Amino acid sequence: MTTNAQLLFNAIPKGEPTSDSFKYDTSSTIDLEQELSNGASIVKLICVSLDPYMRGRMRPAEIKSYSPAFELHKPITGHGIGVVIRAAADSKYKVGDHVYGTVPYQQYLFVPGQQTVDEETKKFLGPQASLRVIKNEEGLPWSAYIGAAGMPGKTAFMAWKEIADAKKGEVAFISAGSGPVGQMAIQMAKADGLKVISSAGSDEKVAFLKELGADVAFNYKTDDAKKIFAEHGPIDVNWVNVGGKSFEEELEFMNLHGRIIGGWISAYNGQSFGVRNLFQFVAKRLMMRGFIVGDFETKYVDEFYATIPKKLAFGDLKFKECKYTGLENAPKAFLDMLAGKQSGGFGKVFVQISDDDTA
Amino acid sequence: MTTNAQLLFNAIPKGEPTSDSFKYDTSSTIDLEQELSNGASIVKLICVSLDPYMRGRMRPAEIKSYSPAFELHKPITGHGIGVVIRAAADSKYKVGDHVYGTVPYQQYLFVPGQQTVDEETKKFLGPQASLRVIKNEEGLPWSAYIGAAGMPGKTAFMAWKEIADAKKGEVAFISAGSGPVGQMAIQMAKADGLKVISSAGSDEKVAFLKELGADVAFNYKTDDAKKIFAEHGPIDVNWVNVGGKSFEEELEFMNLHGRIIGGWISAYNGQSFGVRNLFQFVAKRLMMRGFIVGDFETKYVDEFYATIPKKLAFGDLKFKECKYTGLENAPKAFLDMLAGKQSGGFGKVFVQISDDDTA
Repeated sequence: MTTNAQLLFNAIPKGEPTSDSFKYDTSSTIDLEQELSNGASIVKLICVSLDPYMRGRMRPAEIKSYSPAFELHKPITGHGIGVVIRAAADSKYKVGDHVYGTVPYQQYLFVPGQQTVDEETKKFLGPQASLRVIKNEEGLPWSAYIGAAGMPGKTAFMAWKEIADAKKGEVAFISAGSGPVGQMAIQMAKADGLKVISSAGSDEKVAFLKELGADVAFNYKTDDAKKIFAEHGPIDVNWVNVGGKSFEEELEFMNLHGRIIGGWISAYNGQSFGVRNLFQFVAKRLMMRGFIVGDFETKYVDEFYATIPKKLAFGDLKFKECKYTGLENAPKAFLDMLAGKQSGGFGKVFVQISDDDTA
Repeated sequence: MTTNAQLLFNAIPKGEPTSDSFKYDTSSTIDLEQELSNGASIVKLICVSLDPYMRGRMRPAEIKSYSPAFELHKPITGHGIGVVIRAAADSKYKVGDHVYGTVPYQQYLFVPGQQTVDEETKKFLGPQASLRVIKNEEGLPWSAYIGAAGMPGKTAFMAWKEIADAKKGEVAFISAGSGPVGQMAIQMAKADGLKVISSAGSDEKVAFLKELGADVAFNYKTDDAKKIFAEHGPIDVNWVNVGGKSFEEELEFMNLHGRIIGGWISAYNGQSFGVRNLFQFVAKRLMMRGFIVGDFETKYVDEFYATIPKKLAFGDLKFKECKYTGLENAPKAFLDMLAGKQSGGFGKVFVQISDDDTA
């Protein structure tokens, strides 16, 4: 038997999560030599993703939301990449296949031939509910497939295509531009010929926004957003990654018939700033639409995988990641990510669980 | 010379308007016998409309908004119906023509052959900027053409068609259902096969909502909206006539992929309740769109006039009006309308300036 370390959901946070919200547990084991039948396989996880939406899952199970609550004292789940290390003769996976999907955060994964996904999870995940084999002919780091070529990249790609209704020469504002969704959104907007204003929380991040192509980049902690909007706006497409008080300010600088793509990260911690100027929706005939990436999966998934990984590999699209090593560091990675204060730089936060020694 | 009484914008209100915001003035005169040339005509106004959006125009001219500010010490303007009593030989109007459009609130109107409309007003009015001849082959009361067959009716008709994306069997919530927009919205929703929940501020109004076809009608002053939404919701299409705190409650009871048609009357008086749960837009993937009726005028105006007046005349669509007699009573009509406390019943508030003695 082999130790199968897990990251358990340990306690429901009141307000901001702390390291006590999680428990790194090494008491479980898995038999890596077990006989496999009925399509089963064993996956060794390579890396897993830490994303803001996970905060919303750290809640009592009786509170319903768009995503299923994490189960207390069970491994948290999220997007991960792994490699198949064992497979039954009748499995749809082969040893050496790399797979992407929603997984429990632990070292090894027993994957039954018939995956049983409860209804709530299936509704949340949509067509992502089973593991997808990733060929990676582009030779990207595997972590890219949970970042720029994974859920956050898809979020930006699909929502931009579906909601932005972008027209050349318009102005886009993208907050949290250095995060994984923001990075891709900036580049989508530039590719469509928009002028891009973007913000982030440090001068180092702001410099990166410019590298990504942002025409105007500012540090929301030290710069006056209103002054910048007044000079470089009004905003035609507003990608709301943050929300709250910032959103109220942004509404004042929206252009007539502006579109708002809804994210609201600030709400994940139960923050509840009251937005007072929704009348701007009438005055400026604004349209706002909230989304989760699963909504558009079926429509765009093929186009996404056919185009984005190549562009990332060729450098036509840039991305920046922030790696934490070892599942035991996932709580720190998560808390740093929520606070926007990663120790190892910035960008898409992920945890490397193991090296891909089978490739 | 004949007295030409006017309703002047007298003072910019702080908070709620008062009767001092207006001045009924009888010092102006008009020469009804003057020689007319170059396409000019003279219109005697029959009735004018009092609408919530007018509150937004009672502001300092230097504050820009979607509608032009009223000019201090000049007649307020809005939708009216009049009859042509004199016309130059080369006028596009004939004596006896009834005309609909945006007019100064006064007894008589000199209409130049070439109407000069400033840019701001033209942008606001769109294709309505000039007077439209109304045939009224249906024999409706003229007031209907500033109500159910006028701007408020168009607002409901056009926004419902453009934004609701209604599907049979869905649930619509329409607040302020006894007002002129709400009345039509309820009937539009029923015609599309939706279950309609609607609210109003008195039991008499609530009874009328049921007459209009609302499946569930409640008095928002005495009933518990949340309980009603919990029992009869969730809401697929939310027509936000009120906004503010009610809107925050409604958001909690929206269905997945719900649509929100944006009105926000409560904001007209500068009220500014902060809506704290915009994260529902993500959680439920909601879409919200604000509009003003002029946006859709070109697209729907022919269909509107070809269908709605007939249905109103045949009783296929119901409407209720609330008449005030005499321009001097327009301030009271306006204040009553804003407060939802009309002395003469409820429904579309208008002022009868003169009888149509030319018909």
